[in-house]
Amino acid sequence: MTHRPTQAGDLGEFPLIERLTARLRAPRPEVVVGIGDDVAAFSVDQEKILLATCDVQVAGTHFLPERCDPFRLGRKAAAINVSDIAAVGGRPTHFLSSLIVPPATHVEFLERVYEGLAEEASRWEADVIGGNVSGGEQLVIDLTLLGEVRLEALLRRSGAVIGDRILVTGTVGAAAAGLQLQLEPELTVDGSSRIAALDAFELPTPRVVEARALVSVGGVSSAIDLSDGLAADLGHVCDASGVGARLSASRIPVAPCARNVARAAGRDALDWALGGGEDYQLLFTAPPTRLGPLVEAVADAGGTSVSDIGEIVAAERGRSLLLDDGSEHALTGEGWRHF
Amino acid sequence: MTHRPTQAGDLGEFPLIERLTARLRAPRPEVVVGIGDDVAAFSVDQEKILLATCDVQVAGTHFLPERCDPFRLGRKAAAINVSDIAAVGGRPTHFLSSLIVPPATHVEFLERVYEGLAEEASRWEADVIGGNVSGGEQLVIDLTLLGEVRLEALLRRSGAVIGDRILVTGTVGAAAAGLQLQLEPELTVDGSSRIAALDAFELPTPRVVEARALVSVGGVSSAIDLSDGLAADLGHVCDASGVGARLSASRIPVAPCARNVARAAGRDALDWALGGGEDYQLLFTAPPTRLGPLVEAVADAGGTSVSDIGEIVAAERGRSLLLDDGSEHALTGEGWRHF
Repeated sequence: MTHRPTQAGDLGEFPLIERLTARLRAPRPEVVVGIGDDVAAFSVDQEKILLATCDVQVAGTHFLPERCDPFRLGRKAAAINVSDIAAVGGRPTHFLSSLIVPPATHVEFLERVYEGLAEEASRWEADVIGGNVSGGEQLVIDLTLLGEVRLEALLRRSGAVIGDRILVTGTVGAAAAGLQLQLEPELTVDGSSRIAALDAFELPTPRVVEARALVSVGGVSSAIDLSDGLAADLGHVCDASGVGARLSASRIPVAPCARNVARAAGRDALDWALGGGEDYQLLFTAPPTRLGPLVEAVADAGGTSVSDIGEIVAAERGRSLLLDDGSEHALTGEGWRHF
Repeated sequence: MTHRPTQAGDLGEFPLIERLTARLRAPRPEVVVGIGDDVAAFSVDQEKILLATCDVQVAGTHFLPERCDPFRLGRKAAAINVSDIAAVGGRPTHFLSSLIVPPATHVEFLERVYEGLAEEASRWEADVIGGNVSGGEQLVIDLTLLGEVRLEALLRRSGAVIGDRILVTGTVGAAAAGLQLQLEPELTVDGSSRIAALDAFELPTPRVVEARALVSVGGVSSAIDLSDGLAADLGHVCDASGVGARLSASRIPVAPCARNVARAAGRDALDWALGGGEDYQLLFTAPPTRLGPLVEAVADAGGTSVSDIGEIVAAERGRSLLLDDGSEHALTGEGWRHF
């Protein structure tokens, strides 16, 4: 019997990260948030926390060079990093850009990527201050974003407690619908749903304004941005906080465009809302008494809605989804179990 | 006549970077060193400057996964970033690691890469505080390194003035000899030359200690680390400072192992010393009066030699190499013109 060595593809992203970070030594005490979170945080002085995150767009994995708009690609590569900084209540400040460029890449395509990057950086008053260009076989846009936050304003994944409400900004499922339309452009969908879904996937709006409004009001016990999907990201909060969660299916703000695209594609919009990922909304928890002021602050700041979609429960009760018929289903990293 | 769009491979690294950065807006005044340098620098408070750099190792471009030692690969990926921070007189503090991993990559290989990264980070008392793992076709290790330096200690490329001496730490050409041995392992070379050359290529020692010794003595007018090659990196200093340079061939500290490998390979060790790159020594300039204290401080700090290899001249005199026979040859980005 031969033993095949374990391959990265056998493990998947999070178990692989765990295996690798086990090889690192524990960081120094000035490091407030280390490996495993979306954002690292460390003290620079008594009050100020510096934030750092990196997120990458790989051709073939995250985008198709021949089908995508390079300006939007540049904006998205920046926006998904901004979303990580927003999720901890921070302000984005400085980008570093690392490109891997196959020799045959059109320079004009790359210039448009950079214009998108510059546009998104400007929008949040961040600067692109450095970077690197290297040759390779596959186009890669790897951005590092630095940011800052005051220590008392830092939001984390780990503070959710039993009885907290689970809240989410805006709508969910639209980005998955947009991806579906990129893969199946021939689907018959009304024009405004098509545009809304594609925009959600290609031009996510990081919730910087909303997160800062939440921080200014206070009372948020945990927060994360929706990159992996509502079920998976809620799972990260539960893991970090040592709690369980119960969502009400009827309260989840599924985007209308996601419903329309799902109908045309013969798919379930709730599946996309829970498992689709890339919505870049804020998911957060707070005690019921803080709900009113928090919802109001977000609405005042940017007109974004906030939905109360469930509650934090004891860890033993696990993570579940309550349907209208009263049945309860397990939530998984990929979404929910229909049976 | 059809017009083929300009491709990245037509331009090369530096013109491509210029084309792309032209798309960015000018950074805010807190940014002390922006795009175009190896390290970005920005103020966090009155005294402290934060540094950020990123450098990448791409399979096929920078290393061959099937031939390299993954532990050494991890160390080198970290060390080349540390070298950038050293070149501005800084102290490395925090790493972020972004991996792109083909599914068939052995997890054990990646664990060894991480052990190397952890080892090199520990060596300089830096922490690995975050990162990202993504799928792709080609293994990529993209590291961002943050660091810090006091404003008055910040070394730059841009301060060289006419009459300054040009100085370099250690020896040069050994890394290129090591690369040659990786490509042609069958070359007949004595064992100690082989080990010295391969070590220089695979395990560079960033000159952190030496740079900090220079800063503590004072008087260094410009500095850079040798990544692209002595001739090219001296060119970066000349461009940034608006000066020319004249090197004396006989004063260049060509590594003995490079001479031995060059002889076996039928190559010229001086070509490797000037054009080979990846030696990760410090190249710096200083007025002649400061030479004694600077050389002494570096020797005291780490036992590393410093060689005086030429002088800064007026920009109109260009960049040249003086041979023993009195002939003067142009220096180029690739090395020097023999004719």
